Amino acid sequence: MTTAEAVKTNTVEEQAKRAKKAAKNLSILTTEEKNEALRTVADALETGYESIISANLIDLKNGEEKGFEQAFMDRLSLNKERIFDFAEGLRQVAELPDPIGDVMSRWTLDNGLKVEEVRVPLGVIGMIYEARPNVTADAAGLALKSGNAIVLKGGSSALNSNKAIVEIIHKALEETRIPKNAVQFIDTVNREATKQLFTMKEHIDVLIPRGGASLIKAVVENATVPVLETGVGNCHIYVDSDADAEKAINILINAKTDRPAVCNAAETLIVHEAWLNQHKELLAESLKKHGITVHGDESAAAALPDVKPATESDWANEYLSLDLAVKTVKDLEEAIDHIDQYGTKHSEAIITENADTAKKFMQLTDAAALYHNASTRFTDGGALGFGAEIGISTQKLHARGPMGLPALTTRKYLMSGNGQIR
Amino acid sequence: MTTAEAVKTNTVEEQAKRAKKAAKNLSILTTEEKNEALRTVADALETGYESIISANLIDLKNGEEKGFEQAFMDRLSLNKERIFDFAEGLRQVAELPDPIGDVMSRWTLDNGLKVEEVRVPLGVIGMIYEARPNVTADAAGLALKSGNAIVLKGGSSALNSNKAIVEIIHKALEETRIPKNAVQFIDTVNREATKQLFTMKEHIDVLIPRGGASLIKAVVENATVPVLETGVGNCHIYVDSDADAEKAINILINAKTDRPAVCNAAETLIVHEAWLNQHKELLAESLKKHGITVHGDESAAAALPDVKPATESDWANEYLSLDLAVKTVKDLEEAIDHIDQYGTKHSEAIITENADTAKKFMQLTDAAALYHNASTRFTDGGALGFGAEIGISTQKLHARGPMGLPALTTRKYLMSGNGQIR
Repeated sequence: MTTAEAVKTNTVEEQAKRAKKAAKNLSILTTEEKNEALRTVADALETGYESIISANLIDLKNGEEKGFEQAFMDRLSLNKERIFDFAEGLRQVAELPDPIGDVMSRWTLDNGLKVEEVRVPLGVIGMIYEARPNVTADAAGLALKSGNAIVLKGGSSALNSNKAIVEIIHKALEETRIPKNAVQFIDTVNREATKQLFTMKEHIDVLIPRGGASLIKAVVENATVPVLETGVGNCHIYVDSDADAEKAINILINAKTDRPAVCNAAETLIVHEAWLNQHKELLAESLKKHGITVHGDESAAAALPDVKPATESDWANEYLSLDLAVKTVKDLEEAIDHIDQYGTKHSEAIITENADTAKKFMQLTDAAALYHNASTRFTDGGALGFGAEIGISTQKLHARGPMGLPALTTRKYLMSGNGQIR
Repeated sequence: MTTAEAVKTNTVEEQAKRAKKAAKNLSILTTEEKNEALRTVADALETGYESIISANLIDLKNGEEKGFEQAFMDRLSLNKERIFDFAEGLRQVAELPDPIGDVMSRWTLDNGLKVEEVRVPLGVIGMIYEARPNVTADAAGLALKSGNAIVLKGGSSALNSNKAIVEIIHKALEETRIPKNAVQFIDTVNREATKQLFTMKEHIDVLIPRGGASLIKAVVENATVPVLETGVGNCHIYVDSDADAEKAINILINAKTDRPAVCNAAETLIVHEAWLNQHKELLAESLKKHGITVHGDESAAAALPDVKPATESDWANEYLSLDLAVKTVKDLEEAIDHIDQYGTKHSEAIITENADTAKKFMQLTDAAALYHNASTRFTDGGALGFGAEIGISTQKLHARGPMGLPALTTRKYLMSGNGQIR
């Protein structure tokens, strides 16, 4: 490590320490103090949007020179409307109920000791994300509302945009009760800096990775700080022998094509062989009409036109495109076994008119969200009415499915006595 | 790796797979089916207690030959009464409310999609523990009641005792609706076997280490499977300038001496210098009377007799003995800073007659359990009325403080529709 790098890596720890200290002050602010601060930041982002756009242009130019693909450039790109959307998002978070201070339960022991279980902030959130600069404002807003400090480590391709956003946030926070140190932005692109966050247990209470599968894997495998795992969705639609054809096809097409690049989009159709044989023409026509490329097993290839042979990687892949894997099964058990083997425990749907089959599927399939006769696209904090979300948890501990403000909290037991001993 | 080892390490994965499969069948049993099974196991442990004692004698003989210390041998040692206590423990778990299937919330979207948030088992619990054979029966009981399969990896010093207990559990389960594969016991003492559990994300949903600090550290640092961190308690009693002397001393002595070897025992007295000066004779007398060895800072040494100079390691140490570190402070802030630096976020107490000071302490100190004018010894599932506990979480994610049955569960969102798409 060169001296310059050593200085930089020390800086990350200093930043985390400052966040920890700020978190303590933040944890005791009132709801109105936090809301007022969020509205102040929102106004400042609107007033200062031009500086963000200027910085974003530099990132876009760098990205073009590096030949990033179009979808990536789209995620990176900002304009006035998008920045005003960040601001509006912060104002919406200000409107959400404040989870902090909620007394979750309360009782008194026989000896008179009073016990209260109270909701408190986690402390310091480490957010590791990729190109989308909107995460900078969104994550900061959710963290601050729930009384947490945040250490932001965004992708290097959005460095200038993120810096411009954080600069505005910092300046705005100076006029509020929230200490500006509660939002730390790591502006080095040195990889050691990110790795330092993985093991900074003393200063960081939770890491939330948001981005592609390889980012999430790197964090899960290397972090000793607890992780809230988000996002990878290899979601299945199982069309049962008792499925209504119109519902099945509508839901499949919606789940596959509405927004193919999001995690709650469907990637694999599991279809009962009897249903497939009966409805293959209708299915083939719909798939063709919507430009879907099919990767299927032998039975699928026999029933449908233009099927590419599916390999192991097709079953495991989150395509995030108009590709669809098609697996044919003889019964519900085979469908569930396939999901057990390849699913990512995100969102799984069954289409059937048979209530018993649906019940079994929902009981025996292990995922955050199970659907009967509806599209997997509803696994989303906004769609389900959570107000806002910091990500979709695919793990089972702490939070599962869309994570709203309560996922950024923990509890304390407060015991008040007058000398009780055991 | 030799062939024999290869076979053994393969076996661990096979065992975890069998547990995963059993978990699926277990998750849909009724409460009565699970309770009936627990009572059957309890009866079998009582009927078969002699075989456990015989096996335990072998472990004790091996332990003596290896020269294990007395406290360790005590934890290892079983007798008829202790085994009947295991059985009674299982019957008590059968009496507890079943968390599985609880509808935690329920709502309907504007489009008619019905949403239910339902409590479900985690799946497979990996329990890694040290010498206490009671954990084998206790952990299996809590896991099964909450619909989870369990993979048990106990300390090698209790191998024979644990095997005898599991043999009885397995034989008893054959007469019940719980598949015997739901309880897996890893009977190899090969270290690779334990390490395999650390990364078996496909088959194991959570690891719970129970034992000393080094075991817990090894699991936290090496596991990619999510961990429920338990137990290390470097707990402080802060005696404020406004503390009532009698309450302060009673609570301190209770927290230090009632059971010095448990995690909710006090390890450090933080004392306001004004209080110390006023009450030093009374404090010195009590400490002496209870055989407490004091490791203190300079001010403590000036005020109290026979004080050994405290070093950095005294502040960080979980003594688990009649040793006590004594830190003198000028104010509340210094006390909280000390706890922030050295505490393990387990249990912290303030003794004061000043309600404002107490409130500040409870707001600003980061721990699972905060006490005002009471002993830290109440941080315990039994004492707080949780019915039973699988451990005391010192982490913030998922569960904090004493963990009862709900800590062994997660949730599913179940969505029922009639063709809803986005």
